[in-house]
Amino acid sequence: MERTTNFPSLTFVFLLLLLLLVLECSATPIPKIRARPQPCKRLVFYFHDILYNGHNSKNATAAIVGSPAWGNRTILSGQNHFGNMVVFDDPITLDNNLHSTPVGRAQGFYLYDKKDIFTAWLGFSFVFNSTEHKGSINFAGADPLMNKTRDISVIGGTGDFFMSRGIATLSTDSFEGEVYFRLRVDIKLYECW
Amino acid sequence: MERTTNFPSLTFVFLLLLLLLVLECSATPIPKIRARPQPCKRLVFYFHDILYNGHNSKNATAAIVGSPAWGNRTILSGQNHFGNMVVFDDPITLDNNLHSTPVGRAQGFYLYDKKDIFTAWLGFSFVFNSTEHKGSINFAGADPLMNKTRDISVIGGTGDFFMSRGIATLSTDSFEGEVYFRLRVDIKLYECW
Amino acid sequence: MERTTNFPSLTFVFLLLLLLLVLECSATPIPKIRARPQPCKRLVFYFHDILYNGHNSKNATAAIVGSPAWGNRTILSGQNHFGNMVVFDDPITLDNNLHSTPVGRAQGFYLYDKKDIFTAWLGFSFVFNSTEHKGSINFAGADPLMNKTRDISVIGGTGDFFMSRGIATLSTDSFEGEVYFRLRVDIKLYECW
Repeated sequence: MERTTNFPSLTFVFLLLLLLLVLECSATPIPKIRARPQPCKRLVFYFHDILYNGHNSKNATAAIVGSPAWGNRTILSGQNHFGNMVVFDDPITLDNNLHSTPVGRAQGFYLYDKKDIFTAWLGFSFVFNSTEHKGSINFAGADPLMNKTRDISVIGGTGDFFMSRGIATLSTDSFEGEVYFRLRVDIKLYECW
Repeated sequence: MERTTNFPSLTFVFLLLLLLLVLECSATPIPKIRARPQPCKRLVFYFHDILYNGHNSKNATAAIVGSPAWGNRTILSGQNHFGNMVVFDDPITLDNNLHSTPVGRAQGFYLYDKKDIFTAWLGFSFVFNSTEHKGSINFAGADPLMNKTRDISVIGGTGDFFMSRGIATLSTDSFEGEVYFRLRVDIKLYECW
Repeated sequence: MERTTNFPSLTFVFLLLLLLLVLECSATPIPKIRARPQPCKRLVFYFHDILYNGHNSKNATAAIVGSPAWGNRTILSGQNHFGNMVVFDDPITLDNNLHSTPVGRAQGFYLYDKKDIFTAWLGFSFVFNSTEHKGSINFAGADPLMNKTRDISVIGGTGDFFMSRGIATLSTDSFEGEVYFRLRVDIKLYECW
């Protein structure tokens, strides 16, 4: 008697477990809705942008390559530089010192995209080739640069950062007129392969 | 007797279940191949682009910043505008009325990239700062704009759209010569965090 | 007696299994850290870039649309073309023959972004409309083009390549002065939907 009451319940639990497994493994694509997680990797870097202004061709790491009809490519245009596109190859450092040994290069472009306030849009990569990091991290997103911090997307990576995705929080660590600025980049990866 | 025949089979099922769990939890990275799912979030917006043409500097939300050697930055070039790059800061509205209260700004660039037909390539963000949405959605992709609808990628997001991925289906809701166009953007997110 | 010693251990295993399932299914977002997997899809293509140089407007598939102040838009600038931005609409072929029937178009832009060596940054799409492939693949990343191979990111896709992510390994298959180059693109997708 005892066994006949026990075993059905055991069987029931088995079936339940199997059902759970089958449900979980089924091909039905259930959209993933998740709470905000902790990063699986976190990295902080600085990069340094020295914009060509007609007098600094030796030191410049960036140059205006596009401008609206009312501007030119030597001086950032009026209206908050709206329409200026800049290409850069900036040194990446571990601290906020321009003269520290670079651990890589920030390469890509930014463009100023608002007439009544400074905002930018960025598409660039961190390209590493140091003993510590090899590979690249690719970024894209809006940079409302008057905000103390602003978030852009990590849209991919290669090498050590194979298939990465995440968020990079930018903050302007320093700027000197229209020639030099330094960005702090706090990279939080949420997909690490 | 009955028990000795019963228990081995129970043990077998246990082991099978354990094996399944272990297989499933193992570090072996099995590429995910999935059927097309339902979006975990869906949003529809409109944005409005008024291109600077030399006479509308007050209203213009966009400006030509790059052109091929045979063009200039005031008038879209011949050959289907091939090579024209435009920077924009366009209002986003919930309906198709240019004068509705904007819920955010579409910021970034597009470029015309075909000589024998109109096609474009887009890199931009929706930047929200309303009671309903905070954060940004980042987009990239090809826009064969003579097609009734065309899909680009949602490559990331921040704030309310943290780590989003998905598809945005664009359709041209209206255009007026080479000065104004309005795009309907049907955003379907398939990765929601 | 035998049963009372047997059943607790069975119950224990049950509970353990249930616990594992619950842990696994819980909403706690555990960042995914995975070993490098095999691609779920792999594709190899070639694309062909013929740059406008003032004399080849009929054949050219690409044109300089941005340059630094010291350059122009007909001839690639000095300093390793730093600051030149090029828009392209290049044929994609299955083999390395420029005259093979194209299976799609590579559309987007590249920019040269280093003064002391050739490097580029790419944002573009493969747009397919053949019997074999429909849809698009979107790419972004740094291209240190003096390296034999270099990896960029597949940041999204549409149609047959819905929601794709992965790596594209580029190699320069041929180049002729500053007018023609051919890239081999080895696409490895690691997220297939």
